[in-house]
Amino acid sequence: MTHQVVIVGAGFGGLAVAQGLAGAAVNITIIDQRNHHLFQPLLYQVGTAVLATSEIAWPIRHLVRKRKEITTLLGEVTGVDTQNRTVLLEDGGMAGYDSLVLATGARHAYFGHDEWEPYAPGLKTLEDATAIRRRILLSFERAERETDPVARAALLTFVIVGGGPTGVELAGAIAELAHQNLPGEYRHIDTRKARVVLIEAGARVLPSFTEDLSAYAHASLERQGVEIQLGQAVRECSADGVIYGDRPLAAKVILWAAGVRASSAAAWVGLPADAAGRAKVEPDLTAAGHPEIFVIGDTATINAWHGKPVPGIAPAAKQQGIHVARTIRMRLGGDAAPQNFRYKHAGNLATIGKRAAVIDFGRVKVRGWLAWWIWGLAHIYFLIGLRNRLAVALSWLWIYATGSRSACLITQGEQRPAERLR
Amino acid sequence: MTHQVVIVGAGFGGLAVAQGLAGAAVNITIIDQRNHHLFQPLLYQVGTAVLATSEIAWPIRHLVRKRKEITTLLGEVTGVDTQNRTVLLEDGGMAGYDSLVLATGARHAYFGHDEWEPYAPGLKTLEDATAIRRRILLSFERAERETDPVARAALLTFVIVGGGPTGVELAGAIAELAHQNLPGEYRHIDTRKARVVLIEAGARVLPSFTEDLSAYAHASLERQGVEIQLGQAVRECSADGVIYGDRPLAAKVILWAAGVRASSAAAWVGLPADAAGRAKVEPDLTAAGHPEIFVIGDTATINAWHGKPVPGIAPAAKQQGIHVARTIRMRLGGDAAPQNFRYKHAGNLATIGKRAAVIDFGRVKVRGWLAWWIWGLAHIYFLIGLRNRLAVALSWLWIYATGSRSACLITQGEQRPAERLR
Repeated sequence: MTHQVVIVGAGFGGLAVAQGLAGAAVNITIIDQRNHHLFQPLLYQVGTAVLATSEIAWPIRHLVRKRKEITTLLGEVTGVDTQNRTVLLEDGGMAGYDSLVLATGARHAYFGHDEWEPYAPGLKTLEDATAIRRRILLSFERAERETDPVARAALLTFVIVGGGPTGVELAGAIAELAHQNLPGEYRHIDTRKARVVLIEAGARVLPSFTEDLSAYAHASLERQGVEIQLGQAVRECSADGVIYGDRPLAAKVILWAAGVRASSAAAWVGLPADAAGRAKVEPDLTAAGHPEIFVIGDTATINAWHGKPVPGIAPAAKQQGIHVARTIRMRLGGDAAPQNFRYKHAGNLATIGKRAAVIDFGRVKVRGWLAWWIWGLAHIYFLIGLRNRLAVALSWLWIYATGSRSACLITQGEQRPAERLR
Repeated sequence: MTHQVVIVGAGFGGLAVAQGLAGAAVNITIIDQRNHHLFQPLLYQVGTAVLATSEIAWPIRHLVRKRKEITTLLGEVTGVDTQNRTVLLEDGGMAGYDSLVLATGARHAYFGHDEWEPYAPGLKTLEDATAIRRRILLSFERAERETDPVARAALLTFVIVGGGPTGVELAGAIAELAHQNLPGEYRHIDTRKARVVLIEAGARVLPSFTEDLSAYAHASLERQGVEIQLGQAVRECSADGVIYGDRPLAAKVILWAAGVRASSAAAWVGLPADAAGRAKVEPDLTAAGHPEIFVIGDTATINAWHGKPVPGIAPAAKQQGIHVARTIRMRLGGDAAPQNFRYKHAGNLATIGKRAAVIDFGRVKVRGWLAWWIWGLAHIYFLIGLRNRLAVALSWLWIYATGSRSACLITQGEQRPAERLR
C-alpha cells in the first residue's frame, strides 16, 4: 500500500506540505471546509473594497490539479481516531492516514466575550471580508440619510480593536477610504469628517516591531487622521459602540483585530494547549506519543525561534510545512530520527496606508514609501499564478492613479429563500 | 425652486435618464435598493465562475460623483403618493418630485409556482449569481464524495428551464465548465459526463431570433454536449429534480430562466398591467393622467416597435431613458406637447459558448466565431470605464488561453451570526 498522507487545512502550511511532497511515493488527501486557498495577508483589502474576492483566493483542487496523487475533499473535520489512524468528517465520512498533518489555522477570539462577535466582527474568511465591507459601506449610506447629528456621528465612527498588523492595516485602509477615496460621492455628509479610532490595550501599536518603527507607524496613522488610544482595554462591545477604559464611544462599525483562537486540533489528538488553544507540539512538530501526527501553523505553538514562540504568520506556517514534508520523505527513506524544527525569521512587514509601510528585516529597517513599494512587490510575488498577480497589480495601480476603489459593493444583505432552505 | 427629478432604479433605463439630463436645470435624486448599477447581460458569467462580481457592477454614487446636482439614496421604495408628488420609502423616508421616473426592472417569475424558487433559483442580482455559482460548484464537490451512482448522477445533472438568451447562455457556460474547464481537477468523477439539460416549452430555442439562427444555436449547444428538450413545459420543481411533460428527471441543480415579473411600479401609480405585471404606459411613456410620471424599461410595456411590444433588453431601456430625458428638457423649455416614443431595434445577440454566438442585425445575420468576437467586443465596449473593460478583457483572455476559470469560489454558505443579528 502506498503511504497515505492526510492534510487537514489548505492554508499556507498545508499547501507547503503538499508541495514539499511532490514526487514522493505517497498518496495525499487534502481536506478543507472551504473550496479555496486564501491569501490572508491581503484579506483586509477585500474588507476595505480595494480587491475583489477572486483576486486573493484559488480553488484548492485547481492548484493541485496536475498532481494526480492528490485528492481534494470539501468537508469539515470533527475529530481524529488516533487508534485507527482515521480522520472523522461531519457528514460521517472518514479518511485513513499513515501520516496526518493538522494545519487548521485559527479564528479571531474575544477573550471570553463571544457575545461581542455580532457587534465586532473579525477578519479570517472571504465571508468575513465581504460582511465587513458591507458594514463599512452601509454605514456611510445610512449616515447620508440620517438627519440626527448624534446618530450620524455614530454611523461615521469606525472603531478598530487591536493595534497589531491587521488592526493597523484596517485603520489605515478605512481612513484612506473615508478621507481620500469617498469624498465627492456623498451630498449630505463629509466623509473626511469620519472618525477612525484604533484602540490598543498595550503601550504601542505594532508591538512585534521595534520601538522606532512603532513610533513611525503611530505618527503615520495620525497623519492619516486615525485616532489612537493606547493602554486601554475594551470592556464592552454593543450595537451602540464600545466602552474602553471607562469611556464610552458611540460607533456603529466595530472591527475586531485583537486576538485569535486556534482551531480544535489540539483536542482532536488529546494534546495540551496554551491559552489561545494552540496545541503544544514536540520539537519536530509532532504530537507527543504520535510521531505520525504533525500539527503546524496557527493551530500549534512551539518555542523554535531561539527559544521564543514561532509567530503566527504565513512564512512560519510555510517553513513548518516544508519541514514536515522533509521529515515524511526521510522516514520513507528509512531514516526515522526526529528532525527538530528551527524557525528562521525573515522579517516583519505592515502597511499603514498609501505610500507608508514599515519593514523590519532585523539588521535592516525600512519605512515610508520605499517600504510601501517593497511591501507591494513582495505581496504580488507571493500571490499564486500570473493571473492573480496581474489582477492585483491592475487593482492597485488603478487606485494609485485614480483614487477610486473598484470593489465598493454592498452584497450579501439578505439570504435568499433558496439558500435558507437547502 | 429648481425642478426636482426623482429616478427610482439605477439600471440601464434610470442611468440613461440621469445622463440625458446632464447640464439641464434640474436637481436629481436617484433611489435604488442596491448600491450598485449592474451590467446584467454578463451576470450569467458571474454565475458560472467566469467573472468576478466587481467586474460587472459599479457603485451608483461613484458613477455620478461629478454631477453635484445628483443625490444618490440607498433605499427601498414602497409606494408613490401621486397626489402630493412624493415617493415613499420603506423606512418612512420620502422624496418629493416634479418629474418621476420609475425604472425598477423585473425579477424572475414562476408562473404562479413561487414555491419552486428554493429549488430553481433565477438570475437577476449579484447575490443570485454568487448563490448559483455556489450551487453549481458545490454539486461537483458533493458528487466527488458521493459513492451511490444514482445520487451521484443527480448531482451531476444540471437543468436549465427556459430556452431564451439567458437559458442558452447559462447552458453553454455550464457545459463548457463541466466538459472543458473542470476535467482533471477531480479524482472520483469525470466532469465530462455531467449532463446539462435545457428545457424549453416552445418549439425552438432563442424564439426571438430567426429560425435559421435558432437552428444554428440548437446545433451548437448539442455539439457542446447540451441536451435540449423542446415543447415540454416544466410541471414540477423540487429538491429531487424536475418533472417535464410527464417525465421526471433527477437533478440537484435547477436554474430558472423561463419568465420574469415586473416590479410593483404599476400598482404604485394605479396603472393597468399586463400578465407579467408590466405597467401599460401612454405612447410618450407617461402614466395615464399623470404626465409627470414616466415608467420605462422592464417594468413597463408599450407597443412602440412598429406596433409590437418593445423587448425587455438593455438597449430598449436605454432608448426609453434618453427619450424621457429629452421630454423633460423640452418641457423645461416650455414645449409640453407629448413626444411619442419609437423603439429602434439594433439587433439580437446571444452567445452559446466558446467561439460560438448568434447575432441578428435584421438584414445582416452573423453566427459562429465571428459573431462570438463581435459579441465579446460589443460587451466590453458597453461596460462602463476603462478599469472594468481591462479586468473583463483580462478574465476572458485568460480563460481563452488557459481554459481555467479564476472565479470558482464557493462563498456565502453560512450567514455569519454577526449578519443574522443586524
